[in-house]
Amino acid sequence: MLNTVLLGGGNIAHHLFVVIRELTSVNLIQCYNRNIEAIKSFEKHLEITDDLNKLKDADLYIIAVSDNAIAEVSATLPFSDRLVVHTSGSMPMNELAEKNRRGVFYPLQTFSKEKPVDFSEIPICLEAENQKDLNTLKTLANALSDKVYEMNSHQRKTLHIAAVFVNNFVNHLYYIGNDLCEKDKIPFEILHPLIKETSEKLMKVNPKEAQTGPAIRNDIKTINSHLDQIENNAYKDIYKILTASIINTYGREEL
Amino acid sequence: MLNTVLLGGGNIAHHLFVVIRELTSVNLIQCYNRNIEAIKSFEKHLEITDDLNKLKDADLYIIAVSDNAIAEVSATLPFSDRLVVHTSGSMPMNELAEKNRRGVFYPLQTFSKEKPVDFSEIPICLEAENQKDLNTLKTLANALSDKVYEMNSHQRKTLHIAAVFVNNFVNHLYYIGNDLCEKDKIPFEILHPLIKETSEKLMKVNPKEAQTGPAIRNDIKTINSHLDQIENNAYKDIYKILTASIINTYGREEL
Repeated sequence: MLNTVLLGGGNIAHHLFVVIRELTSVNLIQCYNRNIEAIKSFEKHLEITDDLNKLKDADLYIIAVSDNAIAEVSATLPFSDRLVVHTSGSMPMNELAEKNRRGVFYPLQTFSKEKPVDFSEIPICLEAENQKDLNTLKTLANALSDKVYEMNSHQRKTLHIAAVFVNNFVNHLYYIGNDLCEKDKIPFEILHPLIKETSEKLMKVNPKEAQTGPAIRNDIKTINSHLDQIENNAYKDIYKILTASIINTYGREEL
Repeated sequence: MLNTVLLGGGNIAHHLFVVIRELTSVNLIQCYNRNIEAIKSFEKHLEITDDLNKLKDADLYIIAVSDNAIAEVSATLPFSDRLVVHTSGSMPMNELAEKNRRGVFYPLQTFSKEKPVDFSEIPICLEAENQKDLNTLKTLANALSDKVYEMNSHQRKTLHIAAVFVNNFVNHLYYIGNDLCEKDKIPFEILHPLIKETSEKLMKVNPKEAQTGPAIRNDIKTINSHLDQIENNAYKDIYKILTASIINTYGREEL
């Protein structure tokens, strides 16, 4: 039985609390948060504290706090040589204080409070300083998800950057599409089937082969005609830079 | 019974040929293409021709050719005062020669030859010069799709621009994410659930509210750390411009 303590009171901490508590192979024994009000709802299920000095003995401490608090929380832990992990995609493992055995337990997904998530579908990326600790993290990760990956801090950061492109930036392009439609009184729902098709195609076809549109055809007439109609200068610049990047990506091959 | 002639030999023409031919309420009587070889496979089902002077009498002529050929083909038609439509998203209705009654029949989807499409899910955007012709186009559109919209040329062009953002540009962001992962030997499949989640969320939540990531948090430390790790200058520029646009979109509200 893996005794675990969870530190943090944000989105990830809340989601981890819910799914870890359900496991039979892992025992969530305590939750910590600096602001105890944020984890008050955990109290009926297990011990909560806002005092790092009252942390119980455990096999694993999961620090699920914001990126810029990881160093401080881990440095303030009143013990050493125990397994301590953070849950951040962009922070390296050595953001954690050196006095403990370090690791990373990074679930790759956008968590919102409103929407329940199916954790078994969420990829979990693991890193640890030694094989024994990695195995401990695997025990937890495999109990939660069918998709468990080992990777180093550099790879995890690249993955996080790639996630910014395919999730945060993609959503912003959806926003722009929506905004353009609204301004001309076109129901954005017209574009839903196309959006669905584009993301589903990706699961079957490499995005390099799936590319369509005026840029890959080098259709300068349509490109200029689009730029003429776009009034918002920021959108115009985004249109230009992405079009140039597509032309450059496919043009290079002919050299 | 609506007698229809189809002109063109590309992707859209092929898909329209397949689905219109199946309709009982519409009679596809002839197909034309300048290069007859491209529509040779239609010959066992109906008359084909490469001579505009041999076009049959019909209630509707659908010009499904590339954007820059629409004007010429429509000007060369050896008749007048008949209903002639094109299938382009970015071209205005008056790209068609004035001698005939003009209209637009624009199915909004990316068509690839390999992949069969469920036409009933594809939005079809209609425009015509008068109500009677619009009704004729509705007869055909409603027989093919559950999603039929009327819109003018300006709106259709805006829709096409929005489609470039949410389809072509989104796919290019998928390509960049894939490329970043490949270079660091990370399986891109790790990002598939996140991509699926991002596009599905859009169907339920307005993209403005769905935005997450370092840019909307104005998390300059993470943004700079990402920019440090991205080696490709084109990707760096795209990261910067989209981050600035997100910050600007949400920052404006606080003014």
